[in-house]
Amino acid sequence: MINGNTELIAHIGFPTRTFKSPMIYNPWFAAKGINAVVVPMGSQPDHFPTLFQALRGLTNLRGALITMPHKVSVMDLVDELTPTARVAGACNAVLRRPDGRFLGDQFDGAGFVRGILRKGFVPQGRRALITGTGGVGSAIAASLAATGLAELALHDLRAVPTEALAARLREHHPALRVTVGSNDPAGFDLIVNATPLGMNEGDPLPFDMSRVAPGTWAGEVVMHQDITPFLAAALARGCTVQQGKDMLFEMIPAYLEFFGYGSATPEELRAVARFEAETEA
Amino acid sequence: MINGNTELIAHIGFPTRTFKSPMIYNPWFAAKGINAVVVPMGSQPDHFPTLFQALRGLTNLRGALITMPHKVSVMDLVDELTPTARVAGACNAVLRRPDGRFLGDQFDGAGFVRGILRKGFVPQGRRALITGTGGVGSAIAASLAATGLAELALHDLRAVPTEALAARLREHHPALRVTVGSNDPAGFDLIVNATPLGMNEGDPLPFDMSRVAPGTWAGEVVMHQDITPFLAAALARGCTVQQGKDMLFEMIPAYLEFFGYGSATPEELRAVARFEAETEA
Repeated sequence: MINGNTELIAHIGFPTRTFKSPMIYNPWFAAKGINAVVVPMGSQPDHFPTLFQALRGLTNLRGALITMPHKVSVMDLVDELTPTARVAGACNAVLRRPDGRFLGDQFDGAGFVRGILRKGFVPQGRRALITGTGGVGSAIAASLAATGLAELALHDLRAVPTEALAARLREHHPALRVTVGSNDPAGFDLIVNATPLGMNEGDPLPFDMSRVAPGTWAGEVVMHQDITPFLAAALARGCTVQQGKDMLFEMIPAYLEFFGYGSATPEELRAVARFEAETEA
Repeated sequence: MINGNTELIAHIGFPTRTFKSPMIYNPWFAAKGINAVVVPMGSQPDHFPTLFQALRGLTNLRGALITMPHKVSVMDLVDELTPTARVAGACNAVLRRPDGRFLGDQFDGAGFVRGILRKGFVPQGRRALITGTGGVGSAIAASLAATGLAELALHDLRAVPTEALAARLREHHPALRVTVGSNDPAGFDLIVNATPLGMNEGDPLPFDMSRVAPGTWAGEVVMHQDITPFLAAALARGCTVQQGKDMLFEMIPAYLEFFGYGSATPEELRAVARFEAETEA
């Protein structure tokens, strides 16, 4: 129940209609008696710096969740960035410190990695391929790089940011083999779709699934539906899969700690989440 | 349940801890299946113009409720003002029109007047005294002036804004006798406390209650408690009283129509309001 003492977490992006976090955080806050609320705020790129500046002065703001299309541009607006955010080259959470400074961090990759590790993926010596080196793909790369993988391969049609990500990975993880190349999944132990492919009907699959070996791990960032066409094809090939929403539920405990609201298990969060609300008008 | 399609009504003021509107609107929206939420936003005067500018670009904003200390300064920030807001010299609600223009209106006075009329006050030929000519006092004066009163007397230690209000009242209501003078309640049919006196323990009463005749109507704007010391003294004198919250519940149907969310009766709103939430941390 929102009242005059409620703390706000601004959830900023555009469009807002695909936002899921309010339906996870808010029921959890309610269940725990925490007087805070995640509030969707639709903001387009030309407006975002103005909004961000305005949030600095809100007296009841705890922080912000930053999503597309602002995860990169917000880096220039915060006062401080964590190393994870620097390597990822993107920021998806902002905390207002007691002194008023805004700290930017990055949890997209942490959620993905926590999820596959809990499912039993053993990264040591393995080879991973990520297609899509935008905000979320870069974040997953940054977090995967710290797990002990042998090789991390990147694929994206945009060569410049992909090479830049590879350079940041090599700088911070000298023992990791970082390659930039095709999206051919043959020979990889983990393949990750970090592109939007799968959000729209008729999208091509992100990989040539005929070249995926059984036993490969397949991770998805699209959370438009639980089993995307990519994950369906991966399951048909005998892969172990991680859904987009798994990543979401895994990352939220890390966010909650970041914001100072304690923690929760993914199971606790799933038990109270209210995704059916997304179909409301 | 807030989701990515939820429309926002920003409730802006400082401090926020005394805000009541979220606990009235939000349960009503929930009861009616309206996907909208009133969100408290704490903003101090030097920050308010920045926040207001930022709200213009929010893609999911329906409008704003404006409270202290911004009800006057917001008049310079909107694109258009209703006549009620112009006479009151204050604005407490802003609607974003489909073309993006921000329209400012004023409902504090409407709520007060609707309340006493429903309780049976007959304004024709009567004399009313208002102490406090800040935002809410001016709004009540603006609305009372349109009811057919014979005289409206204003009292406030701040002479300049009080004379300015009197001038606006005389300009728009030439048949009304408008006076500026003391807070002596003797001889008035309706006395209104529109000062903050009563919000803090030990505040003096707004009027010399020994000079209030039985049968006088006494209206209060302080909603810190149902029966303020002023109302208690008025009841002891045999007055008919209107509580601060009555004004609040009476004005909300007018707000709902303004925002395009249909309407409600004060009784419907009271039935769902959740004031007990105000004691939460």
